[in-house]
Amino acid sequence: MKIGLLGLGTVGAGAYEIIENGKGRLQEFYQEELTIERILVRNLDKKRPVEVPEDKLTTDAAKILDDPSIDVILSVMGGMEPAKSYILKALQNGKHVITSNKAVVAANLSLFLEEAAKSNVAFLFEGAVGGGIPIIKPLKQQRRLNQIEAIEGILNGTTNFILTQMMENDLEFDTVLADAQARGYAEADPSADIDGFDVQRKIAILSSLAYGQDIPTDKVYTRGIRSIRGMDTDYFKSKNLDVKLVASSAEQDGAVSIWVEPCLVDPSHRFYAIKNSDNVVSFIGHLSGRLDFVGAGAGMDPTANAVISDLMDILDNHYQADRIPLAVAENVGPTHASQDYYLRVDLLSCSKSEQTRLAKALLNLGLTNNQEIYQGMIEDIEASAMRALVSDVEKECGSIFYARRLRG
Amino acid sequence: MKIGLLGLGTVGAGAYEIIENGKGRLQEFYQEELTIERILVRNLDKKRPVEVPEDKLTTDAAKILDDPSIDVILSVMGGMEPAKSYILKALQNGKHVITSNKAVVAANLSLFLEEAAKSNVAFLFEGAVGGGIPIIKPLKQQRRLNQIEAIEGILNGTTNFILTQMMENDLEFDTVLADAQARGYAEADPSADIDGFDVQRKIAILSSLAYGQDIPTDKVYTRGIRSIRGMDTDYFKSKNLDVKLVASSAEQDGAVSIWVEPCLVDPSHRFYAIKNSDNVVSFIGHLSGRLDFVGAGAGMDPTANAVISDLMDILDNHYQADRIPLAVAENVGPTHASQDYYLRVDLLSCSKSEQTRLAKALLNLGLTNNQEIYQGMIEDIEASAMRALVSDVEKECGSIFYARRLRG
Repeated sequence: MKIGLLGLGTVGAGAYEIIENGKGRLQEFYQEELTIERILVRNLDKKRPVEVPEDKLTTDAAKILDDPSIDVILSVMGGMEPAKSYILKALQNGKHVITSNKAVVAANLSLFLEEAAKSNVAFLFEGAVGGGIPIIKPLKQQRRLNQIEAIEGILNGTTNFILTQMMENDLEFDTVLADAQARGYAEADPSADIDGFDVQRKIAILSSLAYGQDIPTDKVYTRGIRSIRGMDTDYFKSKNLDVKLVASSAEQDGAVSIWVEPCLVDPSHRFYAIKNSDNVVSFIGHLSGRLDFVGAGAGMDPTANAVISDLMDILDNHYQADRIPLAVAENVGPTHASQDYYLRVDLLSCSKSEQTRLAKALLNLGLTNNQEIYQGMIEDIEASAMRALVSDVEKECGSIFYARRLRG
Repeated sequence: MKIGLLGLGTVGAGAYEIIENGKGRLQEFYQEELTIERILVRNLDKKRPVEVPEDKLTTDAAKILDDPSIDVILSVMGGMEPAKSYILKALQNGKHVITSNKAVVAANLSLFLEEAAKSNVAFLFEGAVGGGIPIIKPLKQQRRLNQIEAIEGILNGTTNFILTQMMENDLEFDTVLADAQARGYAEADPSADIDGFDVQRKIAILSSLAYGQDIPTDKVYTRGIRSIRGMDTDYFKSKNLDVKLVASSAEQDGAVSIWVEPCLVDPSHRFYAIKNSDNVVSFIGHLSGRLDFVGAGAGMDPTANAVISDLMDILDNHYQADRIPLAVAENVGPTHASQDYYLRVDLLSCSKSEQTRLAKALLNLGLTNNQEIYQGMIEDIEASAMRALVSDVEKECGSIFYARRLRG
């Protein structure tokens, strides 16, 4: 079986190590010879995480996508284009496609699944959600037996690392972010992680599969962790709570509520012990009950391991049942249920007009506000009231942070 | 596809509801007609958890095992015999076999896998370990890619329920056990659960698969929870610890250390929030890292869901790669590593000779013992020293309870 690799970053290098350099046990169990025939890179002279024979590298995608001897494409490059065009072309040319690129999957899942079905090939993406956690496969199987009622997870290793470090080492957000960037855990432009867009894509993918609806990412109500401060984590610690960036969705009678928000959990909650770059995905089936899957949310070996698990399913011919027609989602939005919330408002750090608006809003909610900083738990308030309270001020100046209290 | 059902207890009734009564979505996705052709029961007149047409029931196993029109056997009866003979006969007759009976799987795994390979049929047992948690399938796949280094889990819902109730409601062991028996969560003879034998079988099955060795259950060092008392759980609560019956194994250079023991975890441990009848299975692969799978450890719907997941793999033809040759295990034993332990000794509740022996042993360990009851943490002591200290007295009179401190 001949493989074409699109991209040679961290995940690509991990896949190369497993397939070509015998890292792992794959060759013990598959007699069939596996070869990475050709690798698409942008720059032939760049230094790579693995040593690769020069004649395998190409900057010409057609040399891979139009090569009839290549059976499988591993697309481990990031971004939307040209990843989308390459994946489509490969599927149309009758090649199986495996990808770990969540952005392109979230935006095109329905299209890719249709093209794969037309060409009778596999389109697999275990590495796109939850890093090394095998979650896509059991979810695809369980949805054919169970009514999936809800999904909940911690789906981003970078933000979970930042929150864990703030909680455990009494550090400020900016300090931990800078440290994570220096160590390569966070991107130079950290927005996709800390503003929740990465998680937004992942919960959209999981929910689309679970409920059989094509859920657009822009319908996922999303808040990140950019405005959290040490005074917030101090408060959580005093209450024996921990803070996590949680993604959640639920389906009832065709309507899907879906959101990404900072949440507070106590030690009895299964998410409490999910620390640093670990991830968790839970789903509730009407027969299976709640199932949680925990593991490394990122990293070369775990993510490559997930990608190669997909390759094994192709080698084993275990993918036929993956055809999942997705309906157009018609009723998708944030939740309206009442919840308990933590709220912290720092009136002095925002503009004069926002100060006036916020002070009034706090009074309307019946919250004492004779100080510059309001901080406390609000019981049983509608999610929409919280959304209205903060409007756009949260991201602007970090004057507000709020988090939903999540119960076991 | 025609199915023969051996047994019509809780799990059998759950499977019947899914296949025959449309509980679940199976029929939406599988056009092929599924029928439970015949059901083996011991007594035709017994009241069942589901209503079943009388002509499907039989007391004659041959009417199922020798019927060439039956393709798949679901063996959901308990005990060793006749379950073992029936499974062997079915495999020899070229039928796929699915079972949730951990006792018969633990004792005959290697034999069943060989017979299945000979007849080119599937032998699947997702429901035998971890109830409704899909763990066997990912473990079988990951072992073909990863070196599995260790397994750890809470594998018995009854004991986890008892421990949770003692901790949360300040109850004594006997009270909770009696309550669990009254509710049907625990057997009239609770030994298999509370003395750890059920867990012993499950960790033997998981470890055999993971390390490719046929591990006999009697090589699994096993202690249960029979001697735990309120004074122990009071102490754990005062230290912010929780107690769990944990199964563990690790492999290095062919040698397997494997044990079942009560363990103490703090809130930062992933097992801390696994409460009541929930189970967890973790394994560590050299590429995947640590993966945890959490869900219902028992119950009609979850276990039937696991059994039917196996049936789906047969319908999808997704089982060929399950052939796992197991070597004879040659180096299996308990761990010898030093650990921290909690120890409680009640000198007055055991015999005079044991009192003398124990008092001396405590002094040798450098533990103060001027009172009738010794209770405390012992740091960094070899596991073998703890085993020697308690010898057989623990089970006899409940005068000793000890538990290993498990770190994240």
